[in-house]
Amino acid sequence: MTEPLFRRMTVVGVGLIGGSLGLAAKQAGAVGEVVGVGRQLASLAVALDRGLVDRVTCDLATGVRDAELVVLALPVAALVAALPEVAIHANPECVITDVGSVKEPILAAGDQAFPDGRFVAGHPIAGKELSGPAAAHADLFRGASWILTPSARTQPQAQDRMARLCEAVGARVVPLEARWHDEVFATVSHLPHLVAYALLDAVLATERGDERVRFSAGGLRDYTRVAGSDPVMWRDIFVMNREPLLKVLATYQEQIAQLAAAIQAADGEAILARLRQARLAREELLHRT
Amino acid sequence: MTEPLFRRMTVVGVGLIGGSLGLAAKQAGAVGEVVGVGRQLASLAVALDRGLVDRVTCDLATGVRDAELVVLALPVAALVAALPEVAIHANPECVITDVGSVKEPILAAGDQAFPDGRFVAGHPIAGKELSGPAAAHADLFRGASWILTPSARTQPQAQDRMARLCEAVGARVVPLEARWHDEVFATVSHLPHLVAYALLDAVLATERGDERVRFSAGGLRDYTRVAGSDPVMWRDIFVMNREPLLKVLATYQEQIAQLAAAIQAADGEAILARLRQARLAREELLHRT
Repeated sequence: MTEPLFRRMTVVGVGLIGGSLGLAAKQAGAVGEVVGVGRQLASLAVALDRGLVDRVTCDLATGVRDAELVVLALPVAALVAALPEVAIHANPECVITDVGSVKEPILAAGDQAFPDGRFVAGHPIAGKELSGPAAAHADLFRGASWILTPSARTQPQAQDRMARLCEAVGARVVPLEARWHDEVFATVSHLPHLVAYALLDAVLATERGDERVRFSAGGLRDYTRVAGSDPVMWRDIFVMNREPLLKVLATYQEQIAQLAAAIQAADGEAILARLRQARLAREELLHRT
Repeated sequence: MTEPLFRRMTVVGVGLIGGSLGLAAKQAGAVGEVVGVGRQLASLAVALDRGLVDRVTCDLATGVRDAELVVLALPVAALVAALPEVAIHANPECVITDVGSVKEPILAAGDQAFPDGRFVAGHPIAGKELSGPAAAHADLFRGASWILTPSARTQPQAQDRMARLCEAVGARVVPLEARWHDEVFATVSHLPHLVAYALLDAVLATERGDERVRFSAGGLRDYTRVAGSDPVMWRDIFVMNREPLLKVLATYQEQIAQLAAAIQAADGEAILARLRQARLAREELLHRT
């Protein structure tokens, strides 16, 4: 590449996503320089040491100065809280993006902080079972979808530059309406996490729960990856996306209640119909993605 | 081994568990000859071809004749239904065992069919994501727990011979009270499966559910192994173990309702406490087993 897409990219939050993006964008020649901003010195040291970023700072104002792109790679509540300060210190031409798992509230806050439409809301669909800069790698986004959810206000040229960065690190850009994004991810990501957390809580809440756990083979064990994710990150997501999440959760509770009623009645046919239906969803999942 | 534990072992149901036991027991020299009984000729042919069994028959009466051990490796409802016929045709000294995931009702039926205590109820904790004789292998039970749930009626010498077979194929014998077994497995296996099936059903039940499924990365995808198990097998388990299952399901529904209320109220502290609690259960799970 003769000219990088962004001469300086500042990544706020040098965890798995932020750190991987720094490394991947540098390797692709898509950015000239990467600045990492964080609060934990240990994480910044790892990011610097692994070459995920070129320079680090704990000060947001210093970090975003002279950046052409600021990537907010923080838990969603911290991300929204950081927007006004970024707006104060970033250059007037700087493009701002995020990687949050909830989009409508973040897009609204971003549009408010950047009324000229320089905020491009995004969500890379990349694995999250590990976290932190030690887990970052240059191929994290290769073959992954990177959802962008523009508003009527979003500048097309800002979105276009961001889309080219996503493609440069190997991702496939998927434009989506923010509200629909939040409904979809409430269904395929947030609800499954909530269900796993509740299941593990329920197991511990039974009599002699810790003894029961010793006998887990498959079944419960399959839930451990999901329930191993960062509680603070998920608290934020559950609260911020609560309206779509509670809606799909109600559908789930109804399915559970119907299945419980069929089991109570020992209604084999009704149970079998539901289990077969679930297998269909599974086939859909394994073959369409 | 100079003398096999059982000169002839008949395996009724030559699927993953039955087929693997045939192969493993033969390789260990724990049985002289293995007879496979099944209804599907294709499965019997695979079992014979792969050397999981030495002879096959579709006729239960023929199959159990002259056996020293009969292993019922069928879905739990079919297993209970087969007991009286096995009692009619098996030799008076023959030991009978099963591998079902529910123990109290099977133990009761087994004791009724074999009032002299020759029935030894068992449950090997071995992977079940694959099924059928093609997936069988000799190492399936190596390092696994094999639970035995004797009643007051069970003959100690029958149980002892069965335990030695379990050990011969590499399993660790775990004696457990049948009722407690059923409560434990309702918690760590049956409920997690029910939850996964209900989740996939709920996803399909949402508006444009199949479109949503396309965006699954982690989260929903982690549930597909569990929900890929055989629906008939699980229908039987849910119905047969319904009392302990519905009890732990009620605990789970309560956990879900409390988490939903905390999300509705945007009560970050309460949500975080629950997510952290779930992580504890997860640590328990990963470190104690």
